[in-house]
This record gives sequence, structure tokens and C-alpha cells, in this order.
Amino acid sequence: MTDKNVEAIVAGGSPVRAQDGVDEHLVERRIHSDSVYEGHFLKVRRDQVRLPDGGIAWREYVVHPGAVMVVPLTDDGQLIVERQHRYPLDRVLLEFPAGKLDPNETTLRCAQRELREETGYLAREWAYAGRMHNACAYSTEFIEVWFARGLVPGPQQLDEGEYVEVHAMTEDALFALAASGEMTDAKTLVGLLKLQQWRNGTWTPPWQSAD
Amino acid sequence: MTDKNVEAIVAGGSPVRAQDGVDEHLVERRIHSDSVYEGHFLKVRRDQVRLPDGGIAWREYVVHPGAVMVVPLTDDGQLIVERQHRYPLDRVLLEFPAGKLDPNETTLRCAQRELREETGYLAREWAYAGRMHNACAYSTEFIEVWFARGLVPGPQQLDEGEYVEVHAMTEDALFALAASGEMTDAKTLVGLLKLQQWRNGTWTPPWQSAD
Repeated sequence: MTDKNVEAIVAGGSPVRAQDGVDEHLVERRIHSDSVYEGHFLKVRRDQVRLPDGGIAWREYVVHPGAVMVVPLTDDGQLIVERQHRYPLDRVLLEFPAGKLDPNETTLRCAQRELREETGYLAREWAYAGRMHNACAYSTEFIEVWFARGLVPGPQQLDEGEYVEVHAMTEDALFALAASGEMTDAKTLVGLLKLQQWRNGTWTPPWQSAD
Repeated sequence: MTDKNVEAIVAGGSPVRAQDGVDEHLVERRIHSDSVYEGHFLKVRRDQVRLPDGGIAWREYVVHPGAVMVVPLTDDGQLIVERQHRYPLDRVLLEFPAGKLDPNETTLRCAQRELREETGYLAREWAYAGRMHNACAYSTEFIEVWFARGLVPGPQQLDEGEYVEVHAMTEDALFALAASGEMTDAKTLVGLLKLQQWRNGTWTPPWQSAD
């Protein structure tokens, strides 16, 4: 409950990153690390850590390669979204296109590949919209967000075992589904926050051409 | 690419839930399910599933009890946030208070308990702000969002091994950290979207007294 500290940290740099010598009262340090499950998709590690007070604890977490999400805007003011059955939830969610990074793939190349594979669209312009951490308590996953515009339609190229329905919806319709609580996918809701910040002038997409 | 379908579904009900007889082309059905890792915190299952085309696939996922997040508003227009080291990311994240549901606990009781334990605050009024799914590809986790106001300070009661720094920040400061990309916690960003929707009149918190 030291409000002065956060002001000092904000003034000195960032309140959202661990800072050497400043955050020792918060930081947990690895003692050793074991792989405890190695599946086809999920990899789980269990680490022994040193707590800030010197005590010992265990931390279990999923090792994830990272992912990208694309917020695709059509020339007539709609957004491209997908309906996909998410087996762990047994629900069909409405989501912006997204997918995992391949090894050695840049986040822009991954964004372009996922948009093309899942929706068929190519995009002439891209803008980086930041990173999110969607399961910080138990996963290394990060999701890099890209906005895409100047869309050109083409054929879907879904992975085997992937079933995705692609739709165009207006911004208003998507914001309404977020307000009503019907849209529940966290990454997609974060994409809408970014879109809202663009619309209200507090964030400007740094558009660049496709390559 | 059947935009008519989504319009029909929107007209008939919800585009965000699986509907019997409508979504058979998307839905994966369980054939059997095995526990493959049972840790202190993480539980992982691997299920064999029937794909929409009749093929077979495997799905691995974390079984999570669900969680709550609280967006706490002070009487002088600030928000209560936490800085916490997130070991899987080795970063200190700025987050709204949150925590896992205990067995048989309602989401409101959990929200009240987590707010009290992590920040010391009691709140006189609460408003339910919806549910999010933060790792739909590989976790059953859902996060129920509550807004809290009429805050009364008290002592923190952190769990053993939990290190959390509590701060009050203005809405503008938090929205600025979201716009700059410095705030990366997905659930917290979704809380800001909901706050933005309150401020712009597209969502109204259904306030209720604490009990």
C-alpha cells in the first residue's frame, strides 16, 4: 500500500516491468526447472523458485511458443471474425483470427499467414497494436496484435482438423456483443479496446505496407 | 464465407454459442478423456475427439476451476491495481485484483474475498460485468468480472507465497498505459474495455449492495 512508490516508478520508467533493485520484494527466482508433461501441443514445466522472503515454492506453467491475433478491417467498414468451436469450453466463440507462431517466424509473417489460411484474405497494410499476456498465472503465452486493412479476398487454407466459419460484422455489432456479455473471448475483447482507442484518438495505428 | 448464415444466427439468437443442429459443421465431440498430468495447481487432460467430418483428433487442455477479477473504483475517481511478479513470464504485470474460485464459492463471494485478501478493501456496492475466456484453445478457464465501489480500506491478507503491491491510479493513467502497449495483462485490458463502455454509455453497471 505504498502509493508513493508507484508514482516514483511511473516517473522513473515503467510500472509494468520488473526493475533490478526496485522489485526484489516481488520477484521469484528460478532454483531449478523440470519438464513434467510433454504432449503434442501442451508442454508443462514445474520449477522450484526462491520467494522474495527467501522461502521456497513451486510454480507449474504451460510453455507456449506465442501467438498472433489479427484485427482485419474491410474497406466498407466491417471487421472479419470467425466462429470456432473451442473444445475445452465446448462452446463456439466469436474471435478475431489468431494462431501460434512457427519457429523463426516474425510476428508479421505469422499474422499474414494466419489471416490467409483461416480467412483467405490478403491485406495491403498492417499496423502493430501491441502485445498481451492472456494467462500470466500459468502460461508463457503472449499474443502479438496486428491490425490489417486493404483486404483482398481469396480461398481459405485451413489446417487439417481445423473448422472455422468466417464472417464480416460491423464495429457497432461487435461492440454491442461485448457490451451485452455475449462475446467472451479475451483476446478479441482486447482487440476491440484497441479499436476503441483508435476511434477515440488515444492510439494511432502505425500503418505500413504488407512488406 | 457464408455471411448470410451469421445474420440468420444473429437474428435467431446468438452468434457466440454452439446451437444444436446449426453448428454441427464446427463442433468436436468427446470420444474419451484421460488425465495426463495432475500437479498441485495444473491439471491437464487429453481427449480423443470426433471432428465434424468424422475424423479423429486429440485435444490437450488445462482443467481450471474458474476465476474472478475485480475492477475497484475509489470514491475520488481512481482505480485499485496491483503489481505482481508473474513467474512464467518473469515480468511484473500491472493487473486488477483476481483469483481462483474456491469450491462451492459464488463468483461474488470470491470477488469480495480476493479484493479483501489482496488489497484489504471492502466494497459497499458491486456490479456484475460479464465473463471472459482467456485461453480458449487450451484451458477451461473463465474469468467473471465484477466492478466494486464504495471502497473501505483495511489490512491485506495475502496467501502464503503471494507478493502483491497495491496502488491507486487514475483512469486516464491506466488507459494511457493500455494505449502505449505497456499494460499487457489481457484480463485487465478487458476490464478497461468494460469501463470504457460504461463511460461512453453503451453499458451500465447493474449495481447491487454488498449482500
